[in-house]
Amino acid sequence: MPEPTAPRPISRRRLLGTAGATGAAGLAAGAVGGTLLGTAHAGSTTTPLTSIGTTVHPFHGTHQPGITSPLQTHGHLLAYDLVPGTDRRGAAALLRRWSQLAAALMAGEAADVDGTHISLDAGPSSLTVTFGFGAALFDTLGLTDALPTALAPLPEFSADALDPDRSGGELWIQIGADDALVAVSALRLLHRAAAGSAVQRWQMTGFNRTPGATARPMSQRNLMGQIDGTNNPQPEDEDYDRRIFVPAQGDPPWMAGGSYAVVRRIRMLLDPWEELAQEEQERVIGRRKSDGAPLGGDSETTPVDLAALDGAGRPVIPVNAHVRVSSPETNDGAAMLRRPFSYHDGLLPDGAPDAGLLFVCWQADPLRGFVPVQRKLDRGDALSPFLRHEASALFAVPGGAARGGYVGQALLEG
Amino acid sequence: MPEPTAPRPISRRRLLGTAGATGAAGLAAGAVGGTLLGTAHAGSTTTPLTSIGTTVHPFHGTHQPGITSPLQTHGHLLAYDLVPGTDRRGAAALLRRWSQLAAALMAGEAADVDGTHISLDAGPSSLTVTFGFGAALFDTLGLTDALPTALAPLPEFSADALDPDRSGGELWIQIGADDALVAVSALRLLHRAAAGSAVQRWQMTGFNRTPGATARPMSQRNLMGQIDGTNNPQPEDEDYDRRIFVPAQGDPPWMAGGSYAVVRRIRMLLDPWEELAQEEQERVIGRRKSDGAPLGGDSETTPVDLAALDGAGRPVIPVNAHVRVSSPETNDGAAMLRRPFSYHDGLLPDGAPDAGLLFVCWQADPLRGFVPVQRKLDRGDALSPFLRHEASALFAVPGGAARGGYVGQALLEG
Repeated sequence: MPEPTAPRPISRRRLLGTAGATGAAGLAAGAVGGTLLGTAHAGSTTTPLTSIGTTVHPFHGTHQPGITSPLQTHGHLLAYDLVPGTDRRGAAALLRRWSQLAAALMAGEAADVDGTHISLDAGPSSLTVTFGFGAALFDTLGLTDALPTALAPLPEFSADALDPDRSGGELWIQIGADDALVAVSALRLLHRAAAGSAVQRWQMTGFNRTPGATARPMSQRNLMGQIDGTNNPQPEDEDYDRRIFVPAQGDPPWMAGGSYAVVRRIRMLLDPWEELAQEEQERVIGRRKSDGAPLGGDSETTPVDLAALDGAGRPVIPVNAHVRVSSPETNDGAAMLRRPFSYHDGLLPDGAPDAGLLFVCWQADPLRGFVPVQRKLDRGDALSPFLRHEASALFAVPGGAARGGYVGQALLEG
Repeated sequence: MPEPTAPRPISRRRLLGTAGATGAAGLAAGAVGGTLLGTAHAGSTTTPLTSIGTTVHPFHGTHQPGITSPLQTHGHLLAYDLVPGTDRRGAAALLRRWSQLAAALMAGEAADVDGTHISLDAGPSSLTVTFGFGAALFDTLGLTDALPTALAPLPEFSADALDPDRSGGELWIQIGADDALVAVSALRLLHRAAAGSAVQRWQMTGFNRTPGATARPMSQRNLMGQIDGTNNPQPEDEDYDRRIFVPAQGDPPWMAGGSYAVVRRIRMLLDPWEELAQEEQERVIGRRKSDGAPLGGDSETTPVDLAALDGAGRPVIPVNAHVRVSSPETNDGAAMLRRPFSYHDGLLPDGAPDAGLLFVCWQADPLRGFVPVQRKLDRGDALSPFLRHEASALFAVPGGAARGGYVGQALLEG
């Protein structure tokens, strides 16, 4: 968990009761780092609306933010490649600039930042900024000795239709915030801070539900209408940290406290999907659409019973249902923390919606997280015919920066 | 103002205190039609978070929704052209389908709608759906006798760089909601309901701030960081309705209670804009960036004093400042209700941000609203060099539908 930041002159109050309301299934308890900036309405039994603006997450700590912290309403994913001629020292200077900027913006100190200030009157609105390194960076900087084996290229999957221009990247930024202007403001400032050092390779924008839009805070529906992320590792699981984060005695050492992010732009073929009857959709997924309960189960939190049979002796959850194929029980316990954003970018030239999921998942080792699960899904998942993986990237996300330091310092000054 | 809907079996409560919190400058009092669906937290002095989901606006009434109702967080603008062969009867059937769907979704009855139900567990989240007719529709349907003179093509402006593929359109839908999934769900259902009758011509997606992200509820900043819409007509103005809506004895009669929407996709040249010092930006606009106060004024609500001179006898608000050139006082009292969304669609091939304002303004007559103001801005506005108008459309937006009726009925069955 991120360390709380040092005391600041502005009064603060622990964020109570809103973690679940952010709608991040299974991520609620990851919000313990969230605090309220400024004065809150004392004596109210409900969370004041303005807590959306004033919620702050710490930038510095053991881990970077934006991994276990609750999903935000707005997200931007940006990939950059270094400008030819930028060496390790130049990359270090860029990461220092980016880290200082991210820390200031996340703390609500935008007014102190020389820049556009377009979100001046809002608090940080749960802003998180997360930085990652792609395998190509190690070639470019002559750091192949430090390349983690976990950054080996992802295997090809049969459902892949990858666009190289929107895949890969030497540097990655994930921005999330509960206010669109705060998110765009961070994007613009970070982008400008890269000028001369790195050029943008691709950019994607996504969204999640507005805090408070539903009274069922665990629900985070995707554009297929299915509740997403129910099976995520839970913070109370004894192996939660071990599954998500590289341990303090990391391999390589500079990745101590880090994690690996798999990013997939997964287009949903919504036209044929929406032609299915609800019962057919539910058999594809293995969960009820209304409440996310596994078929045959009572509620979203009912454990998935893969052994259950119906009266005719057939599996209650079909053999190729998404929830069965992706279940940790059928994958040697492989698990990843899904933390996606939906996207909707209009219609494609053929009239199909350019919409789906900016799938982001986190794990200590992709070869024991995303890869085996996706391999299995690729072979027999009933959902696969409705999905196209259109972009893919894998990033090493170093541990959090210490105060006065910057993300990736142990690599770039190692 | 929209009429309240008839009593429903679900208990309701007037929406108190949240209108301003939606952040729509000058539109707050337009929210009187907003009600809360379901039970609200009684006894709380602040609005519970869940009111974001449960706020409902009426579809039926004198005027359509989405004109004076508060700006929402998420917006979609869609234009359609009729499929060749669709006649007046087919268009009427489409508008009836669309109207019934919009009424059900806005009332939070999505579960009763045959469709994807992807926002099933949220309330309507202030959803509004607004329908408009472009001039081309009258040609297509042989209704040129009913074409309003106010739908005459907008003049060309020197700052225009219009893309015809993203301009015009026979039919227009404006969707707004405070939850992204509710907005996308409405978009998908309306889109599917058009199948066979109309094809999508263009689609744009925008955003505004999240309710509660800022404690200054009047502030609706655009991507230039400026507070937008301060000078909007106010509901308490005695000529408010007259400026925005066609009177009951309308000309043409089928437009009684209607309004005209000018839609402009205005790209902001953010790179050069952000190079300006804050003081330069403020002189371009004529307002302080921090709080929106006119230069020389105390606060955002301080009336703009165009006559004020500084110690050296120069105008405090520069002669070409945006606020001066666009001021009603310098335009024979012309006024329109600005109700825009920001957009940010990534970077263009040249590296410039594809970002700006989906400018939507409302008036009883564009020739006395948008046109004279834009003509003047086009000649001498200090802001113009930082803007490109990339798409343009003008729609006649009929009055609201009666229960059992549909939008445009008086035209299509007239």
